Amino acid sequence: MTGTFQFADMLQTIADRGRRFLSLAPRDDENPVTGTTSLCETLLSSRGEASGMALAQNILRRWQGFSQEEQRAFMLLLLQDFGPDLGRLERAIEEYRRDQGPEALLELHLAAEPRRQELIRRLNLAPNGIRTLVQMREALLKLKDLAPELAAVDADFAHLFGSWFNRGFLLLRPIDWSTPANVLEKIIRYEAVHDIGGWDELRRRLEPEDRRCFAFFHPQLSDDPLIFVEVALTRDIPSSIDSLLREDRTVLPAGEATTAVFYSISNCQAGLRGVSFGNFLIKQVVEDLRRDHPRLQTFVTLSPVPGFARWLSGELRNEVSDALPDAAREVLRQTEEPGWEEREQGADVLEAALTTAAASYFLRARDPQGRVVDPVARFHLGNGARLERINYLADRSPRAMRQARGLMVNYLYKLDEIETNHEAFAARGEVVTTPAIRRMIPADRGSRGLLPAPGASSNPHEHEKQHKAPTESAS
Amino acid sequence: MTGTFQFADMLQTIADRGRRFLSLAPRDDENPVTGTTSLCETLLSSRGEASGMALAQNILRRWQGFSQEEQRAFMLLLLQDFGPDLGRLERAIEEYRRDQGPEALLELHLAAEPRRQELIRRLNLAPNGIRTLVQMREALLKLKDLAPELAAVDADFAHLFGSWFNRGFLLLRPIDWSTPANVLEKIIRYEAVHDIGGWDELRRRLEPEDRRCFAFFHPQLSDDPLIFVEVALTRDIPSSIDSLLREDRTVLPAGEATTAVFYSISNCQAGLRGVSFGNFLIKQVVEDLRRDHPRLQTFVTLSPVPGFARWLSGELRNEVSDALPDAAREVLRQTEEPGWEEREQGADVLEAALTTAAASYFLRARDPQGRVVDPVARFHLGNGARLERINYLADRSPRAMRQARGLMVNYLYKLDEIETNHEAFAARGEVVTTPAIRRMIPADRGSRGLLPAPGASSNPHEHEKQHKAPTESAS
Amino acid sequence: MTGTFQFADMLQTIADRGRRFLSLAPRDDENPVTGTTSLCETLLSSRGEASGMALAQNILRRWQGFSQEEQRAFMLLLLQDFGPDLGRLERAIEEYRRDQGPEALLELHLAAEPRRQELIRRLNLAPNGIRTLVQMREALLKLKDLAPELAAVDADFAHLFGSWFNRGFLLLRPIDWSTPANVLEKIIRYEAVHDIGGWDELRRRLEPEDRRCFAFFHPQLSDDPLIFVEVALTRDIPSSIDSLLREDRTVLPAGEATTAVFYSISNCQAGLRGVSFGNFLIKQVVEDLRRDHPRLQTFVTLSPVPGFARWLSGELRNEVSDALPDAAREVLRQTEEPGWEEREQGADVLEAALTTAAASYFLRARDPQGRVVDPVARFHLGNGARLERINYLADRSPRAMRQARGLMVNYLYKLDEIETNHEAFAARGEVVTTPAIRRMIPADRGSRGLLPAPGASSNPHEHEKQHKAPTESAS
Amino acid sequence: MTGTFQFADMLQTIADRGRRFLSLAPRDDENPVTGTTSLCETLLSSRGEASGMALAQNILRRWQGFSQEEQRAFMLLLLQDFGPDLGRLERAIEEYRRDQGPEALLELHLAAEPRRQELIRRLNLAPNGIRTLVQMREALLKLKDLAPELAAVDADFAHLFGSWFNRGFLLLRPIDWSTPANVLEKIIRYEAVHDIGGWDELRRRLEPEDRRCFAFFHPQLSDDPLIFVEVALTRDIPSSIDSLLREDRTVLPAGEATTAVFYSISNCQAGLRGVSFGNFLIKQVVEDLRRDHPRLQTFVTLSPVPGFARWLSGELRNEVSDALPDAAREVLRQTEEPGWEEREQGADVLEAALTTAAASYFLRARDPQGRVVDPVARFHLGNGARLERINYLADRSPRAMRQARGLMVNYLYKLDEIETNHEAFAARGEVVTTPAIRRMIPADRGSRGLLPAPGASSNPHEHEKQHKAPTESAS
Repeated sequence: MTGTFQFADMLQTIADRGRRFLSLAPRDDENPVTGTTSLCETLLSSRGEASGMALAQNILRRWQGFSQEEQRAFMLLLLQDFGPDLGRLERAIEEYRRDQGPEALLELHLAAEPRRQELIRRLNLAPNGIRTLVQMREALLKLKDLAPELAAVDADFAHLFGSWFNRGFLLLRPIDWSTPANVLEKIIRYEAVHDIGGWDELRRRLEPEDRRCFAFFHPQLSDDPLIFVEVALTRDIPSSIDSLLREDRTVLPAGEATTAVFYSISNCQAGLRGVSFGNFLIKQVVEDLRRDHPRLQTFVTLSPVPGFARWLSGELRNEVSDALPDAAREVLRQTEEPGWEEREQGADVLEAALTTAAASYFLRARDPQGRVVDPVARFHLGNGARLERINYLADRSPRAMRQARGLMVNYLYKLDEIETNHEAFAARGEVVTTPAIRRMIPADRGSRGLLPAPGASSNPHEHEKQHKAPTESAS
Repeated sequence: MTGTFQFADMLQTIADRGRRFLSLAPRDDENPVTGTTSLCETLLSSRGEASGMALAQNILRRWQGFSQEEQRAFMLLLLQDFGPDLGRLERAIEEYRRDQGPEALLELHLAAEPRRQELIRRLNLAPNGIRTLVQMREALLKLKDLAPELAAVDADFAHLFGSWFNRGFLLLRPIDWSTPANVLEKIIRYEAVHDIGGWDELRRRLEPEDRRCFAFFHPQLSDDPLIFVEVALTRDIPSSIDSLLREDRTVLPAGEATTAVFYSISNCQAGLRGVSFGNFLIKQVVEDLRRDHPRLQTFVTLSPVPGFARWLSGELRNEVSDALPDAAREVLRQTEEPGWEEREQGADVLEAALTTAAASYFLRARDPQGRVVDPVARFHLGNGARLERINYLADRSPRAMRQARGLMVNYLYKLDEIETNHEAFAARGEVVTTPAIRRMIPADRGSRGLLPAPGASSNPHEHEKQHKAPTESAS
Repeated sequence: MTGTFQFADMLQTIADRGRRFLSLAPRDDENPVTGTTSLCETLLSSRGEASGMALAQNILRRWQGFSQEEQRAFMLLLLQDFGPDLGRLERAIEEYRRDQGPEALLELHLAAEPRRQELIRRLNLAPNGIRTLVQMREALLKLKDLAPELAAVDADFAHLFGSWFNRGFLLLRPIDWSTPANVLEKIIRYEAVHDIGGWDELRRRLEPEDRRCFAFFHPQLSDDPLIFVEVALTRDIPSSIDSLLREDRTVLPAGEATTAVFYSISNCQAGLRGVSFGNFLIKQVVEDLRRDHPRLQTFVTLSPVPGFARWLSGELRNEVSDALPDAAREVLRQTEEPGWEEREQGADVLEAALTTAAASYFLRARDPQGRVVDPVARFHLGNGARLERINYLADRSPRAMRQARGLMVNYLYKLDEIETNHEAFAARGEVVTTPAIRRMIPADRGSRGLLPAPGASSNPHEHEKQHKAPTESAS
Repeated sequence: MTGTFQFADMLQTIADRGRRFLSLAPRDDENPVTGTTSLCETLLSSRGEASGMALAQNILRRWQGFSQEEQRAFMLLLLQDFGPDLGRLERAIEEYRRDQGPEALLELHLAAEPRRQELIRRLNLAPNGIRTLVQMREALLKLKDLAPELAAVDADFAHLFGSWFNRGFLLLRPIDWSTPANVLEKIIRYEAVHDIGGWDELRRRLEPEDRRCFAFFHPQLSDDPLIFVEVALTRDIPSSIDSLLREDRTVLPAGEATTAVFYSISNCQAGLRGVSFGNFLIKQVVEDLRRDHPRLQTFVTLSPVPGFARWLSGELRNEVSDALPDAAREVLRQTEEPGWEEREQGADVLEAALTTAAASYFLRARDPQGRVVDPVARFHLGNGARLERINYLADRSPRAMRQARGLMVNYLYKLDEIETNHEAFAARGEVVTTPAIRRMIPADRGSRGLLPAPGASSNPHEHEKQHKAPTESAS
């Protein structure tokens, strides 16, 4: 620990010193953007070897002072001037055409690598470089919306981040009430599923003996989590978020818990979009909990259904819907009126209709690319979980009412089935679920075009599964 | 710390579990090498996403059981079967020929990347994966001597290691007598310059208040240093290794030291050959020492001259030598007889002749690529140090007598000159040294072809420097 | 760290096991108090050696379930039944009367030690025993108000705590925004001088670079501070608390600070009353800050004056006052009307009168034991600080207006004067202050009986000091 | 950690500063011993409060420079001049005679406490004070042999150390091959049972997966263990030390072990003689191992029998022996000749005779105070272990041959019997052992005076036990 802190201090000192004798401060008459890309060229040169840290820090500091317009200009220069050396690339292609041996292939690979990648690696020499580089990509992702051609620059960041944030380099740490406050305030800030109202609420999520939280960290970002998951230890699979989070609930002695509920998973770093940790985090936490609490038998989520309401509205707007019988459509239209959830009369009919619609949404509905519509479902099914239960009025928060008509679902992680479930989903597009949910969907409607592949039910052993087009896991 | 240990345990558990349900143990009738590359294919497939850790561990365990012959066969399969997808590459070249825009360039770059790189990244998912991968490359470097075509595979390891062991990810830690024994035994083992005879000698190098040692570590290899430097705090620039290391020396109160002597730098990991840390290590340690001991003014090495004796023998075998006057050659031939160093008569003549010859060796002699001959000199001069002093009979150990006729030299690191010295050496091939050493070389002999570039002395400000061909720093 | 946690777990396990096989749960028909003192007898017996941890834990758990009435009964039994062995004591006195040699003295000492002390030492064997023992004394201090005879029991706790919380065993730790939340919430709770309103305010006191906080910890109470001090780094000696704490203040770069202001010192553990840490804490923090920030020259407090208003009211109620001239009394009576501090007219007259009265309060007023009246003044003067400045309307909070008519003062810690100041105050009762404050007190009034010793000003070298009766430092 | 180190630095700084401005260096004409006791008086005075750390350090440094003669003179002055205040004590006795209430008792206790105790507490203020105080008592114990009157001074050290090294304040830490070298070298140095020949042998005791080592530490002596135990994990109760320690043994996978063997327990600090840790250490390590290795069922020692050979020689010298039948005496005399253990002929007779004699030694023989003769036996039996097996030629090292004729024994710790075994031994003097060992002793010889109490076998439930006089546990 001591070593690490000294190291950071030292990096600072070295960089400060370097900056002084290199006289790198921008001159008044200099264009800040081209002045900076010119420093980037120096960093890539031989001189960069001797003074890399100072140069890298200077560039990153200048970047931090850029306006959005300057950021964009800088990124466009990275696109234009720091791609591959085109002459070398041309020669490498020629050589490869002549002789497709390993040497030519290697040279072709090297020649095709944009110089940006080496530039980004050298910028990482600066003290706290990786932190600024992640922020830089966060800005880049916003710029990309305005200037789609920056996708190539983004690809270089994504490529390196994928390698640097390889799971093998990450640390899993428990987060609890003895975690440093500067980390905890980030948990409050990053929580993306069920807002944490302040420090008192945070404590209620961390301190009781039936609560757990775990996060991945990168060794060089030890005060800033990459992703975290909040866990409740319970006796049963919960059917509403309120049963887990309400202030006056009774704390369960940890030794009596049989079930671990993953009720919130939040990615923390916008600049790491596309670098996937969640799959790995859940499995690792399952193992950790099993080892420390052998009585835990059931590992399950309580998850939002963020795409349901939009899909449902679409289906209700259509004149006909393959997904919903006409009778159900009548009932479901009630859920478009504010306050519908307060009415007691007909609640059981509403529950049946919404739940059945949700079963269709998960098992039948597909997006234009043929994927399961719900992104959270894609994530957990892609991880090898199965769709376990659909919970009516499980979250009455405005967001959940708006996005999911109050529904939440449980995805179940059974360690012995994860591998086959993943294969079923990834390779054959099958949504693994329970017979109860499966039965909500009449077999005949299966043929009316919602399914990319017919004959799903021809295999009697697959009565719990549902085809979908192959897809990647998404987080 | 706790988190880290738990993490390692957990990785183990997950991988064990994974291995079990995947039934990955090799079958009896299976070819162990092709069986393993077939697992590598699986690891690269979608299925690898769900079970990556278990698969990666299985592959690495199999590798660890391979005979050298199997290792070679495995690496040759990596060469043949895990290069780029040639069809995709061909299409990408075609596309690029049509339209040289960013998208085509990006696709060309992606298509040209050997599949080995993603394979190595996924192998890193295994518990302790990085450790085994470094060992794997160590083996690969040996195999490459026998099978040079494996250079392309080695390039992929080298590329990824350069990125993963980026200086920005390393930790500098002091090594002292309170360092864990499992790290210290590695210091004994890895010391490559002045052997450490055992634990008592190790303590003499670490415990006295006028001794320091620092090492770089990677966060995932926290018990295995990458490179370390041993430092003596002194009052003067030392002229022999014995003055620093003999058992009965007097310990200097640390507060009275004015000089820090870097007397041993050792790379530890053969599998990281070509990933350069030394440059950075020295500069950082200089900064660290300056901050903690403001009285320290002089930072200098006491370094071996490993190429001198071989070069001298060559010059003495030649009928004529540009580097050595005939009179000196007569004298120097005495140093080819065993026991020459014990003779007192004529010792001053011998000292003058050897020292002058060494000045020629550093300032004039060049290897076929035009580089300074001595690898240690290339390293320190490339870092921006200057050649400060040549020490006669500074190391009487058999190795030093054999390689350097007992000579050692000091390289001086002056922080304010490092940048310009580096530039002089890297860009213009100049060896920066003192007037005293410079004067040993008659100017006229400068023109007899040893110098790649004439006119070196035309610039009066460069009377202390000597041209050499541009070169990279070497460690 | 790991070891420590495992240790705690283990203690728990051992104690649990012990409890089981000892069948220590109280029987239904048992008097809970005498049942517990009977366990205390067992703990003191030979059997207590084998099962000490389990017995100790059992006793402490029973204590934790006691009502206040049971606590009192238990303590009274400790008083009656766990004093010295009176027979042994009688014999020891007889022996000592015969022969006053070392052996007889030793036996007398041992015989006079209440058995309670060994009992408390053995209760400390329980997991977290020290924590419960501190709580036990906190309860005892309350009981003592009702049952003064318990003073003898309290003396035993105080004696052992003085030994166990010896400064040589304490750890000083910085408290900052990366401190674990469970420690920080205690900082909020224990702050006794200037309330911390919540986590946001806490952050404003810890995170800015011109703020520091330090606390003493006992190794066995690592999440519970014993005492802490809050420090502001400034350019000047501050004259109001608002200038330090207001939300919109400008943060000073730490490198520009010349002055460290101790603006809040809070004892945390009521159960450690009388064990003095504050003196030591301040001096150590001064050393720490000096080492890390060599530019810091001035170390000063901004302190409340909690006894001033009560003293002033007393003086104003008296028909005549030696301390206050009649004219001043007229003016000062205005400060007894609410809202007086808002009036602008006559403010300078009020300021002069209040400040002069405060000078009298510090330099002349003495309590019935002859001590300086103000407890905070006694603490800092006893530590060797000097009274540096009296600040008018320095704290407008209701508490400060009520207790001190808004006054605050600065005490200055000059390292080179601490020793002599302490001696002056401790041995001769002199209050060291500045000439400016000294001059506020007319010399002639010095003779009107407020001073315990006449002739204070006869020594020309002591014109800045003021006699007082010898006293102990108080915190 | 950081905080702790800074703290130590700071203590040093404060003490240095203090020393300077107090001008505490001894004057040339000063008697170093009385000069030092005079500083001790100052330390006990009010002035000591302000400058306690500097004074304490000064005194301890002076002590460290004392010759043994000066040490003795100093200790004698502590005896004479730092006992209780005799006048106050006299008054307290008078007062107590008048009124034996709590106040008088308290005052008597306070008055009887030697001033040395407060002196020792204040010496502990010095940086690293506790370390020097432990060394001071180590010296005192040697002085006590020459000057028995110093027992009263020693009693004060022992009293305070018993309180300060209370088990509740100690930390249990595993010792392994990743422990800092400066701790490990102390393990080599302190090992008192089976010598550790050097670092390679140390590694063989720590690194294999079937080895464990644990030590108690005091938080302020974190690099210096108080006591440690070495453990071997095995499948069976071992019958010789060679089977555990020989270099070429096969390492047992830790998961296959069923038995934990405590084969070496060493106290480390001579200055802590009489402060007992061993009892607690063993029980705690048993709990720790059980938790981490649930397969472990048997916890047993392999222990030396240090008093056996001396006792046996005595019995053989006596004309008649109650303990040994005449026939056995003939056989046993062979073991007084060197090399007896090499003879194969008659080895079984020798084994039977030695083992039976050892059974007598443990079950019958008593020292003049009526205690079991063997100190190791007293320790383990007092902890509640039972004598499980006597092993013939279990240790052929010269020491073991000399002290125990090569015998070693196993003591078994059964958690469920510890309490009752301890009671049997502590309260009724019974040695709990197995029927097999019990049967070696003819019942009739039980009556010939070796037993303090007749009728041991009258209680049929105690057929495995043997009476002995009550005794304290000894380590």
